Amino acid sequence: MSLPSAQYSMTMRVHLEDSSRGVGQVTTAVGDAGGSVTAVDIVDAQGDILVADITVNAADGAQSDAITAAVEAVPGAALHKVSDRTFLMHLGGKLEVRATSPIKTRDDLSMAYTPGVARVCQALVDRPEDARRLTIKRNTVAVVTDGSAVLGLGDIGATAALPVMEGKATLFKEFADVDAWPVCIDSSDPDEIVRTVQLLAPVYGGVNLEDIAAPRCFKVEERLQELLDIPVFHDDQHGTAIVVLGALRNALRLVGKRLEDARIVMAGAGAAGVAILQMLQGEGVEHVVVTDREGIVHSGRSDLHETKARIARTTNSSGERGTVVDALEGADVFIGVAGPDLIAPGDLARMARDPIVFALANPDPEVDPVGAREHAAVLATGRSDQPNQINNVLAFPGIFRGALDAQATRITPEMKLAAARALAGVVPPEELRPSYIVPSVFNPDVAPAVAEAVRDAAPST
Amino acid sequence: MSLPSAQYSMTMRVHLEDSSRGVGQVTTAVGDAGGSVTAVDIVDAQGDILVADITVNAADGAQSDAITAAVEAVPGAALHKVSDRTFLMHLGGKLEVRATSPIKTRDDLSMAYTPGVARVCQALVDRPEDARRLTIKRNTVAVVTDGSAVLGLGDIGATAALPVMEGKATLFKEFADVDAWPVCIDSSDPDEIVRTVQLLAPVYGGVNLEDIAAPRCFKVEERLQELLDIPVFHDDQHGTAIVVLGALRNALRLVGKRLEDARIVMAGAGAAGVAILQMLQGEGVEHVVVTDREGIVHSGRSDLHETKARIARTTNSSGERGTVVDALEGADVFIGVAGPDLIAPGDLARMARDPIVFALANPDPEVDPVGAREHAAVLATGRSDQPNQINNVLAFPGIFRGALDAQATRITPEMKLAAARALAGVVPPEELRPSYIVPSVFNPDVAPAVAEAVRDAAPST
Repeated sequence: MSLPSAQYSMTMRVHLEDSSRGVGQVTTAVGDAGGSVTAVDIVDAQGDILVADITVNAADGAQSDAITAAVEAVPGAALHKVSDRTFLMHLGGKLEVRATSPIKTRDDLSMAYTPGVARVCQALVDRPEDARRLTIKRNTVAVVTDGSAVLGLGDIGATAALPVMEGKATLFKEFADVDAWPVCIDSSDPDEIVRTVQLLAPVYGGVNLEDIAAPRCFKVEERLQELLDIPVFHDDQHGTAIVVLGALRNALRLVGKRLEDARIVMAGAGAAGVAILQMLQGEGVEHVVVTDREGIVHSGRSDLHETKARIARTTNSSGERGTVVDALEGADVFIGVAGPDLIAPGDLARMARDPIVFALANPDPEVDPVGAREHAAVLATGRSDQPNQINNVLAFPGIFRGALDAQATRITPEMKLAAARALAGVVPPEELRPSYIVPSVFNPDVAPAVAEAVRDAAPST
Repeated sequence: MSLPSAQYSMTMRVHLEDSSRGVGQVTTAVGDAGGSVTAVDIVDAQGDILVADITVNAADGAQSDAITAAVEAVPGAALHKVSDRTFLMHLGGKLEVRATSPIKTRDDLSMAYTPGVARVCQALVDRPEDARRLTIKRNTVAVVTDGSAVLGLGDIGATAALPVMEGKATLFKEFADVDAWPVCIDSSDPDEIVRTVQLLAPVYGGVNLEDIAAPRCFKVEERLQELLDIPVFHDDQHGTAIVVLGALRNALRLVGKRLEDARIVMAGAGAAGVAILQMLQGEGVEHVVVTDREGIVHSGRSDLHETKARIARTTNSSGERGTVVDALEGADVFIGVAGPDLIAPGDLARMARDPIVFALANPDPEVDPVGAREHAAVLATGRSDQPNQINNVLAFPGIFRGALDAQATRITPEMKLAAARALAGVVPPEELRPSYIVPSVFNPDVAPAVAEAVRDAAPST
């Protein structure tokens, strides 16, 4: 079902006996095996032999194998080396630590290090708050994980989670010039995670919690917010919620409905669901029904833990019961943060006119996007190969940029709402279309707009 | 006593009414007040007014104040702004985190982050040891402190220690292309420090302990070496010891004595002293006498803690008693890692012919360097304004470079001895002079030579 993409990209070095027709034969073989050739580079011509680097996207690992087999089967072609481009990019890690001023002379050394640095240390003894001015705390965020809920891979631990945290740090830098550093904690004990982050906090101006499993993540975030005087932000919750709310504002504007009046069904009461619900309620949404694996959450259920019991109390005021499909009846908005193939496309026919469908499970949404498009006025997913991708990278870089610039001590609900509105505002109203309710992740206006809104909404210190 | 230096450097912006003589008057005033002008930059000429930036080195803060007062007193000169260059250099911190590959396109994003990164994570689940190849662990060292023994400032805590750790990280990068990151731990409990480093270890390929007070530092290092499979190295101990041993080898060669035969007195039984002693004994030195505040350490003393009791057992085989001055009688080498002005220059007359004196307390050595030079054949200090500076930056960058390249799991005694020998070897025997027993910290041959020796001495994994 997937298409070839860069995530399964490889470069094959091929020696070709037939220098005139060899390249064509190989690219044909790649195409016949389902691959997509993205580049041909001739490296060398040795006598009759032509040496070519053929770069190919595949859909998955099995197809990669089929492609290399197909190339090896081409008469006169010898496959010498296959480089996986994704692994190549990760060789040696994706981050480096650089000095902002060079140390080339004795004077540099005596200012940046001993003996001059002692004067700066002494200034911080006298005024610890100046650490936000005179140290990397000014611009540095910890990307904290225990590796317990990494992408679709689950609990893979601190070491295996590191490539994701490195990637996150690169995005912080590229999109908002925030210096971010991976803090992969080799423990699954919430108290120990909290204590570790607390002990490291002097170095950081903010904490981005990442890929920590629910319900552990709630406790860790709450405790750290109490203990620290720097912002603590669980991106899987609040980053997602901010982007969802921004996108939803634009989608509702397109179909001429108001957020306060909208009837919303949300499938999923995990980390993201809880945060989305909080933001919706903060914006005055009254009609929300939440569903979990057992169906609609209502106060008559006896199987509800603390979090869900609170959801039951504050949602579903009309006391609906039944399945997620029952809940869709007459709804204006469906938000899925649950899992693949929860509903059939035809179930969307039960919704009110011009239904809005956010099916965010990744890579396989709650409803098949192709079928859903027949019913939905607006469809958004978490996938990059569909329009309207709900991607946290639209939020977190700008949010921390704004919070650091404001020297904020926490990310308040007002700052999150301001971020969502700013994100929505990056798509001008006259350009809104069913397939364009959120800006591209590469739109350079996004992070500055979000940062400015967050900074302005921060309480003055 | 100090001379003007860059550590007390400031740039004064001065508006001058007399555009022809004003600059001369100001620089004269600076000189009269004891300052040293290092740069004059004319910024602007507005009508009759000349605007100049005068950069000045001072000896200390009091002299800085005297200089600005003297400039303000110059007729026709108006002092508009004074920038402290050391503080300017620290603004915003001294480190940044950069991506090694840019994220400019969707393909970049899909390889460095989701979805492609999941394949790399899965590879690390299958083979965790590949973290040394596919993540920043390959090249990254934690610079760990609790801020309990920072420079001459003492126990200033984690926040105020951060500028030193940032400076250390810049030196790692500049001298050996090692990515180093400050880990300032807000706790003085050794168990908690150990546990925190242990929990963070997945991200790092080595741990450099820094500015942790004795005896806490011994326990922290020992426990971490037991717990972790990456090198743990307390620089204040072993870095110092390596440079001392390297310098001592060259000094002894100059005076024609052998290390094994040398009679050595060492004042100071703290972190550095213990490490120096270990290395000397590892090299076969037999005649060592150690002194502390109470005088010579000998097995008859009843006031000795565990560490000093061990020193008493393994040194001073002839059972000497008395003061540090008594101990100097007939000694070939004096090594001071204790504190200022412990002995008088004349005491050095008691030593054997061609005495070698390493007075390493900083900024004020155990013996006045000017007076000591009258007696010593070779004198080394910790000061940058004297020849033969014993500076750890000669060791730690190359040591970690070599250890990382060897994928070493610890720094063995053999690796440390190899580092000391390599450092000594950077000064060719024919160039050795009493004022040239160690290379300059800016000698580009140092780190590669040390790294190669350390890598070659590492046990094969």
